Amino acid sequence: MLRTEVVRNILSWYEGETPGLKANLSRLLMHGRLGGTGRVVILPVDQGFEHGPARSFAPNPAAYDPHYLYELAIEAGVSGYAAPLGLLEQGADTFAGEVPLILKMNSGNGLVSGNDQALTGKVEDAMRLGCVGVGFTIYPGSDISYEMIEELRDLSLQAKSRGLMTVVWSYPRGGKVTKEGETALDIIAYGAHMAALMGATIIKVKLPTDHIDLEAAKATYENNHIPRATAADRVRHVMQASFAGKRLVVFSGGAAKNTEELLEEVRAIRDGGGNGSIIGRNSFQRPRAEAVKLLGQVMDLYA
Amino acid sequence: MLRTEVVRNILSWYEGETPGLKANLSRLLMHGRLGGTGRVVILPVDQGFEHGPARSFAPNPAAYDPHYLYELAIEAGVSGYAAPLGLLEQGADTFAGEVPLILKMNSGNGLVSGNDQALTGKVEDAMRLGCVGVGFTIYPGSDISYEMIEELRDLSLQAKSRGLMTVVWSYPRGGKVTKEGETALDIIAYGAHMAALMGATIIKVKLPTDHIDLEAAKATYENNHIPRATAADRVRHVMQASFAGKRLVVFSGGAAKNTEELLEEVRAIRDGGGNGSIIGRNSFQRPRAEAVKLLGQVMDLYA
Amino acid sequence: MLRTEVVRNILSWYEGETPGLKANLSRLLMHGRLGGTGRVVILPVDQGFEHGPARSFAPNPAAYDPHYLYELAIEAGVSGYAAPLGLLEQGADTFAGEVPLILKMNSGNGLVSGNDQALTGKVEDAMRLGCVGVGFTIYPGSDISYEMIEELRDLSLQAKSRGLMTVVWSYPRGGKVTKEGETALDIIAYGAHMAALMGATIIKVKLPTDHIDLEAAKATYENNHIPRATAADRVRHVMQASFAGKRLVVFSGGAAKNTEELLEEVRAIRDGGGNGSIIGRNSFQRPRAEAVKLLGQVMDLYA
Amino acid sequence: MLRTEVVRNILSWYEGETPGLKANLSRLLMHGRLGGTGRVVILPVDQGFEHGPARSFAPNPAAYDPHYLYELAIEAGVSGYAAPLGLLEQGADTFAGEVPLILKMNSGNGLVSGNDQALTGKVEDAMRLGCVGVGFTIYPGSDISYEMIEELRDLSLQAKSRGLMTVVWSYPRGGKVTKEGETALDIIAYGAHMAALMGATIIKVKLPTDHIDLEAAKATYENNHIPRATAADRVRHVMQASFAGKRLVVFSGGAAKNTEELLEEVRAIRDGGGNGSIIGRNSFQRPRAEAVKLLGQVMDLYA
Amino acid sequence: MLRTEVVRNILSWYEGETPGLKANLSRLLMHGRLGGTGRVVILPVDQGFEHGPARSFAPNPAAYDPHYLYELAIEAGVSGYAAPLGLLEQGADTFAGEVPLILKMNSGNGLVSGNDQALTGKVEDAMRLGCVGVGFTIYPGSDISYEMIEELRDLSLQAKSRGLMTVVWSYPRGGKVTKEGETALDIIAYGAHMAALMGATIIKVKLPTDHIDLEAAKATYENNHIPRATAADRVRHVMQASFAGKRLVVFSGGAAKNTEELLEEVRAIRDGGGNGSIIGRNSFQRPRAEAVKLLGQVMDLYA
Repeated sequence: MLRTEVVRNILSWYEGETPGLKANLSRLLMHGRLGGTGRVVILPVDQGFEHGPARSFAPNPAAYDPHYLYELAIEAGVSGYAAPLGLLEQGADTFAGEVPLILKMNSGNGLVSGNDQALTGKVEDAMRLGCVGVGFTIYPGSDISYEMIEELRDLSLQAKSRGLMTVVWSYPRGGKVTKEGETALDIIAYGAHMAALMGATIIKVKLPTDHIDLEAAKATYENNHIPRATAADRVRHVMQASFAGKRLVVFSGGAAKNTEELLEEVRAIRDGGGNGSIIGRNSFQRPRAEAVKLLGQVMDLYA
Repeated sequence: MLRTEVVRNILSWYEGETPGLKANLSRLLMHGRLGGTGRVVILPVDQGFEHGPARSFAPNPAAYDPHYLYELAIEAGVSGYAAPLGLLEQGADTFAGEVPLILKMNSGNGLVSGNDQALTGKVEDAMRLGCVGVGFTIYPGSDISYEMIEELRDLSLQAKSRGLMTVVWSYPRGGKVTKEGETALDIIAYGAHMAALMGATIIKVKLPTDHIDLEAAKATYENNHIPRATAADRVRHVMQASFAGKRLVVFSGGAAKNTEELLEEVRAIRDGGGNGSIIGRNSFQRPRAEAVKLLGQVMDLYA
Repeated sequence: MLRTEVVRNILSWYEGETPGLKANLSRLLMHGRLGGTGRVVILPVDQGFEHGPARSFAPNPAAYDPHYLYELAIEAGVSGYAAPLGLLEQGADTFAGEVPLILKMNSGNGLVSGNDQALTGKVEDAMRLGCVGVGFTIYPGSDISYEMIEELRDLSLQAKSRGLMTVVWSYPRGGKVTKEGETALDIIAYGAHMAALMGATIIKVKLPTDHIDLEAAKATYENNHIPRATAADRVRHVMQASFAGKRLVVFSGGAAKNTEELLEEVRAIRDGGGNGSIIGRNSFQRPRAEAVKLLGQVMDLYA
Repeated sequence: MLRTEVVRNILSWYEGETPGLKANLSRLLMHGRLGGTGRVVILPVDQGFEHGPARSFAPNPAAYDPHYLYELAIEAGVSGYAAPLGLLEQGADTFAGEVPLILKMNSGNGLVSGNDQALTGKVEDAMRLGCVGVGFTIYPGSDISYEMIEELRDLSLQAKSRGLMTVVWSYPRGGKVTKEGETALDIIAYGAHMAALMGATIIKVKLPTDHIDLEAAKATYENNHIPRATAADRVRHVMQASFAGKRLVVFSGGAAKNTEELLEEVRAIRDGGGNGSIIGRNSFQRPRAEAVKLLGQVMDLYA
Repeated sequence: MLRTEVVRNILSWYEGETPGLKANLSRLLMHGRLGGTGRVVILPVDQGFEHGPARSFAPNPAAYDPHYLYELAIEAGVSGYAAPLGLLEQGADTFAGEVPLILKMNSGNGLVSGNDQALTGKVEDAMRLGCVGVGFTIYPGSDISYEMIEELRDLSLQAKSRGLMTVVWSYPRGGKVTKEGETALDIIAYGAHMAALMGATIIKVKLPTDHIDLEAAKATYENNHIPRATAADRVRHVMQASFAGKRLVVFSGGAAKNTEELLEEVRAIRDGGGNGSIIGRNSFQRPRAEAVKLLGQVMDLYA
């Protein structure tokens, strides 16, 4: 399938990036059920590091096997599959070329207190495994947010000069951010904007609530009458904060929820101009047939 | 499109290579009109260095424009496009992701006597431009064949460790090889075998004649009754010499010829078990509609 | 002895690894009394750093001599011998090729408070000494767990590219892990999973108790009815957490205990699908004949 | 002055190059009397290495002083000034920012026989001196043409990744090229094409005669009726050979001649679609007022 | 199987070498039918580079397939398999660990005149593929013998520091060596001695005739009554020249011959104290069953 006008237009936003990065972004945007629509659904499986294996996979034990996760991504026809080193390695050869891969390069560890992450993969690994890009989490607000941002800068330079795109999980937490604020509209928009400022090819944030968390931001949101009543309004604001919608932004829903709630979120993301969803636990924790069906429903809404 | 069984089987030959290399090989094998068949047709445009611009492009002046060559490759639906740095750069951004690219890394220069080539591209360029692989010419037999082989070894190691496949143009000449011998069956088979021994992912050779050139080889061909009466017989022998057919081998026809002659060659390559053709001057020196038609006819034979 | 089907199947899990790594893993799996069974018993002697020489070797003073430890491993016919640099050096020449060696690359130091380790060997040492792999300890949960994980990533990349396999001692401690939790089922499974995500060839963990330590994990274990009543159940869960059993996992019993207790543990490991045991103090702290007899009994159970 | 549409269009040809390179190219194209027209006149002073000081500067002794050359470039309003290290250094501070500079990186040496050149400047020098680009001479055809081409590749990669454009003096000589052939149409077009294939930002060649030098090329020129009767025809063919006119090409006149002859050449370059002239000895060997007047006349023709 | 006294004794000769090298040498000496005897039979397949594919494989076309060669080595139970990069790569994963591998690092090319060879593999490749050692050919006497010897020195240093042993094919030719002299006793002994002086772990030479080639050596052989009447005498002298038999020396028979001739040679090697044979064309050019039978007969003589 050749690139569509929608995809050409998206690539035009990434001016100054290498043709290699654009070719890899194009591979993601042209792959699977949503190929050519400018929307993406990505399967992320990085909960093993964060929550441990049982909390991640016990609800659907087939998912303990890394090949199952590749098969789910391929069968469902999602745009890409993002995971840490070990999960990608166990299947990269068997399924070489069948689904765009994103190497998640850093991961937290649910046994440690605090908001840091360890680097668990390298740009060399991403090339060796045939990935289209690398993923990296930053925690703006946390004590170590500056170190994480500097680490992101180093990795981005390496990755992009070799034609790999970057996906930035931007999750503000700590510092002046309250617990409720982690999903507040102003905070999520702020996190998305910082990822854009860091040169992220794709930005991943949580779907925001209508809460405004920073004291200093409240007047701005009130005085300028920034709409935030509906989820679609809030997505629209996040897109605005992401270079007026000229960066790809995907949203995660977080913990497992029922199908209708999830589809409702997807409609809001679509209506607000978001570029898609990243759906982990809501897919791989369901039985295979249900997961494929759900991902299909999600992609039908985006198509 | 997911990988076919044919393609899975081909990838299985490349054991020990990185998943990245296999993913890039899979991209080539799954692209275009012949995607999934295990056959490939590649558009090479490296004659500018060898023969100069007028001899290359004057028959069809539209081809002076590098974008034309990308468009030809894309419109015709060939498996890949191979060219030196400048030609790939002028279009790599515009057409990012639309056709698998192979950076031809060394090139001769028709103004110099002798059989050397200069390195005109780097592995870094191939990554920056989003190529699936790199191409390299060796002249086994020539005075500098050992230097070329060592240079190939260095580049292969670099390229493969970064997930790029290698295409080796193996053109014996000089030394004990007579002018007629450059297309002799024993010499072509020997050249293909050396490329395989060097670890080439794809081997490119000329379609051989039934001539046997090396004195020392004549008895072997006679005594073992190696069939060589038809072009298909000869292709079959070249495939045998390429690890019993477990390396991809593509054939070039050389100078422009009429359509029927070229299609006849293609039938022989197909019947002898060759993996496809590399068709340069016979395509880009014809008017666009004719070239697209011819490439279509060729691919119909292989499909 | 040629590889068995069991061993071939195990090697197939390690897709994308180099043939060199697989050859070294094969050497371990084909060596000694358990050669070809897919089970391994490894003799580890790294207590000298942790507990000092007297606590390690006074119960059986012959073991102060490094040659004794080589002889014990060879006479008993274990699959491999793992130790820090000095112990391996003293004997590597005398016993070259007689038992697969694993260089333990980091070690704690019982005179310091806290949970760190120092790097006491290098990948170059492992090659120089003819090792089949390198060993590394991580303490997920501890204050320095991220640094250890990043160090492991660097060493793995070096070791694997040179064909050496990695054995990861994954010992969660500190952070949210209580003292009792260090052997809790959820914690051990979590530790094994993290080692798998880091690309470990062989994972070493402690045999878990039926305790669940993390508050956040309790509901998961209850709601999904994860069996944990018997030691075999628990081993089974750890294997599941190790890529559905597609990583080799060996278990340690810890402090010295009586023979029957130890054999009981071995039966549980075997019945739960674990790949074997790593038996240090329980072997080298007994008189030679007893130790050889005990290791023989253990291997008989696994064979 | 903002970039004109003409300049925007030219920059669009250089796809895949960094924004830094485009910004430097834009500086050259927007500077001086021809700013914004898409045409350039460059003052080159590299004859000191080639011919020695007296042959270069005795006709106009004021030009022995490097400041004089800067002043000439600035007063005349040319697009840029290209010279070896020493000449640029003596004035780079005094005239910083007043005229775009091009560091000529290699130079021949009139005391040596043969066709080689030495590297006399480095990319670091070009950055330190605030240059917009670097210049490099290749001699396609000569015994050392492959070495020169590989050296150019290395320097280009360095220069471009740092945002510097490259100007390639492509002067075929030696090998199969006769003395008369050095300015033959087929040879000049070939030289321009090779520079384009090497990724040159700006190509510098000599104005060709209507001679065709390579035996192998004659039929092509005849059979395809490539017009070459007038100098404008020949410039048009060189532009065609330079990626269908999508590379900037500037022409040199060579040895000093009278004003009318030189202006006649300029009209041919203009009418044939060339991008401008590089005028050395014809300017700096005349008295200052005459030189400024002549350069003004040339630029009037191009404007 | 543990090391035998014979093998221990052999390893003791290699004092000063790393334990890693000895472990790899031990792997070779303990492998296959001759494991533990101190004798080795090695299958070398490097004729593809030297003689081309048809002369190498047409007599037994099954051998065109690299897997066949692995299978032959494994089924026959030879001590090791030596081949260039491509042949080892195609099978290194499938047969990982089943036969000790030696990467032949340089190869001649039968299309070129002269006595050079190109480096076609690297020490990194040998590690990645899990080899026990590397092989290298030198041509003492030839114009380039000093370059080859220096190259060997560099590679040996690299290889040995990483625990890889070296096998040196020492083939005097050119210079003062006549054609007949290439197998003369004085020349072969000289070649073996030079390999020993270069630190070769295993020396490979041709079985010598009773000819003495160097004028200067004739008196020595006569005056000292060096026995050379029988092949066993001559082998004994070559062993003497190889550090009084304290280097492993294997002999090749060259072109295909009948079984009885070959076995006769083997008896002479055995009786003269040689360490074994390297048997290429005489094995892989026969049908599989015959080849396995012949290798079995050879090994029976050595056992």
